[in-house]
Amino acid sequence: MGIIVQKFGGTSVADVNKIHNVAKAVIKEKDNGNDVIVVVSAMGHTTDYLIKLAKEVTQKPDSRELDMLLSTGEQVSIALLTMAIQSYGYKALSMNGQQVGIITECIHSKARIVDIKTDKLKKHLNEGNIIVVAGFQGVTPDGEITTLGRGGSDTSAVAIAAAIKADRCDIYTDVEGVYATDPRIVPNVLKADTISYEEMLELARVGANVLHPRSVETAKQFNVPIRVRSSFNLDNLGTLIIGVENMEIYKPVAGIAADSSQIRILISNLPDIPGTAAQVFGALANKNISVDMIIQSLASNGTNSIAFTVDENDFDYSVQIVNDIKNKLNAGEISIDKNIAKVSIVGAGMVDRPGIAADMFKALAENDINIKMISTSEIKISCLVEKENANKAIKALCKTFGLESNVEAVVKGDLPNL
Amino acid sequence: MGIIVQKFGGTSVADVNKIHNVAKAVIKEKDNGNDVIVVVSAMGHTTDYLIKLAKEVTQKPDSRELDMLLSTGEQVSIALLTMAIQSYGYKALSMNGQQVGIITECIHSKARIVDIKTDKLKKHLNEGNIIVVAGFQGVTPDGEITTLGRGGSDTSAVAIAAAIKADRCDIYTDVEGVYATDPRIVPNVLKADTISYEEMLELARVGANVLHPRSVETAKQFNVPIRVRSSFNLDNLGTLIIGVENMEIYKPVAGIAADSSQIRILISNLPDIPGTAAQVFGALANKNISVDMIIQSLASNGTNSIAFTVDENDFDYSVQIVNDIKNKLNAGEISIDKNIAKVSIVGAGMVDRPGIAADMFKALAENDINIKMISTSEIKISCLVEKENANKAIKALCKTFGLESNVEAVVKGDLPNL
Repeated sequence: MGIIVQKFGGTSVADVNKIHNVAKAVIKEKDNGNDVIVVVSAMGHTTDYLIKLAKEVTQKPDSRELDMLLSTGEQVSIALLTMAIQSYGYKALSMNGQQVGIITECIHSKARIVDIKTDKLKKHLNEGNIIVVAGFQGVTPDGEITTLGRGGSDTSAVAIAAAIKADRCDIYTDVEGVYATDPRIVPNVLKADTISYEEMLELARVGANVLHPRSVETAKQFNVPIRVRSSFNLDNLGTLIIGVENMEIYKPVAGIAADSSQIRILISNLPDIPGTAAQVFGALANKNISVDMIIQSLASNGTNSIAFTVDENDFDYSVQIVNDIKNKLNAGEISIDKNIAKVSIVGAGMVDRPGIAADMFKALAENDINIKMISTSEIKISCLVEKENANKAIKALCKTFGLESNVEAVVKGDLPNL
Repeated sequence: MGIIVQKFGGTSVADVNKIHNVAKAVIKEKDNGNDVIVVVSAMGHTTDYLIKLAKEVTQKPDSRELDMLLSTGEQVSIALLTMAIQSYGYKALSMNGQQVGIITECIHSKARIVDIKTDKLKKHLNEGNIIVVAGFQGVTPDGEITTLGRGGSDTSAVAIAAAIKADRCDIYTDVEGVYATDPRIVPNVLKADTISYEEMLELARVGANVLHPRSVETAKQFNVPIRVRSSFNLDNLGTLIIGVENMEIYKPVAGIAADSSQIRILISNLPDIPGTAAQVFGALANKNISVDMIIQSLASNGTNSIAFTVDENDFDYSVQIVNDIKNKLNAGEISIDKNIAKVSIVGAGMVDRPGIAADMFKALAENDINIKMISTSEIKISCLVEKENANKAIKALCKTFGLESNVEAVVKGDLPNL
């Protein structure tokens, strides 16, 4: 029939029993008449263990050697999963990143995929094999082993699906699909049957981590349909992530997420002359600090205030940079707000429906939730609220935008933050 | 100065502390002004653990997938050892079998090395790097991962030394060098300062396992000097294994070893016609059974007896084959002797000195040790004795051939059977 790429994460292959369960899920797809390529991560906490071992050897392990070390984790998984598939009488073979030819840039620990060779994959598929490929790893044109960084295995799977022109890429996970928000906060939240790449990207960017934005971006670019589904319930088809053009939009808001990992920094009394904002954000960009929400406002005394949010990991550096600029530009006080959460609603249907923003602000007001900052994009509206109000906001917004279901979400294992 | 290849086994890199000790031994050689290539095995019991894991997945793991799995063990070691070396401020990098280009036949789990590429090794050495190479593994011309089987890492080291034309290959182990016999039996046994490839090979074949015969044969073929030395005592130069032509022979007997893993099979009343022996040993060879000692004798009734020894692992198969032949040739009874040990003296100096055999037999007789079978080669004499007499024989022969020292052997860690 077609080619299906399946991806199983570390928890799905954490022990021998789970590896056999994955083997059965793989075989089920093969029995459907499809050619199957399986991408797997390292078993359970293997990667963490290896990093710990490296840190015991030296405080600052070299990133090239760390990639050499970490890539063994997936190589163990692919060998064991292949043995498990073979034990049911199916033809299978494993391939590491080098053997497939998952070509990346030569940037250790966070390489991006440049090209994926398909000749060996096609040859082995044509010979009737199920192919088990090591996720998260690649190789440079010089034969150096690289790893892909966060979201790596998802990205491997989607990129292989794109290269081999697969019919679908199935990402198996601990949840039944993509929910409109975190089921721990709203237990009867709706699961989406379909969602667009754009919505998934926005949801991922505002704090949902079912899928890393990298993999969704790759899927969008090459138009690879992704199915997010549960490895514990093979009968549930989960959520299909596809291009907007294929979708009927039923709801203006597809998902709601909160991100509590940001800090707001405000500089007041900046001179109202051209180039001020460029100086502030240029200096931050030079230090590779991503700025999320930005608001500039003119005060009555003719000076500007600029408020923006950064990830809490970048806080120290950011404050240092902003202090330098304050002194240089003779600006006013810097104020820091750590007690914030960004609550976002995301939906491709928003584009055509005025009043969604107003509905959001009204719902928050009715629940006595103060809005500290607002930012909007084509398919997203984000409001900064106080941290302790984040869950209340999500519940209120789920009700407002009809994202509750009659049944509670089924959640097994570690739940990602959606 | 020159190029030194060092090899460290699994016990030498069993934990983080030991890895740092190895790093210091490597750095010491680098500080001597040499280019250094280090070959390492998997940490401690990693390989056993991985095999156990595979057996939990399936009773009969595929040998290709087992190679994929096991080769990760050495990849972990090389990354960690490289990090340790770098932590002392030295330039280093790791390479797996595929990256070096250790080309083997495509026979999984016991591949032989066909070729070793030296271009990358030379490039990295020229850039001032210490290179840490994964032992035990190779890659086929098609990019399939193979492992080299027993004695693999020693063979990797010697083969790399041969390919790069190294000045020496240092095999670091738990003992201080090559002893004339097992120090557990004769505590004050002499350690050899030098020994020839041929002597080392014969010692290895008759039961000593300081070095696998494969690695010694490779060293002999490419004339690579090997130094067997202790990883616990870097000041001791251990034993140098070199070609006979370079050696002064001080003693007629270099070493004594016993092998208790053999079984003697005797067939009597075989017809004294041409081709009888060929039938017996042809049938055994067809089943890939190695026969060690062979004695054929003519009885007074004009029939032949053939006695030979096989490894105890091949016993069942051998008896079955011999029974078939007995019936076919209408031979007499088959008798089995499991209570045997083969005691061998080995020495290149034997060639020119008559009377060594007589001295051996006399020493055994004086100790009331009965000889069941004798076989000789150019530089080896082996006698079958009763199992319980093996240690007594070794002690007597050490005394006879002057292989005792004034000091006791220093043994740390697991002692190989020499």
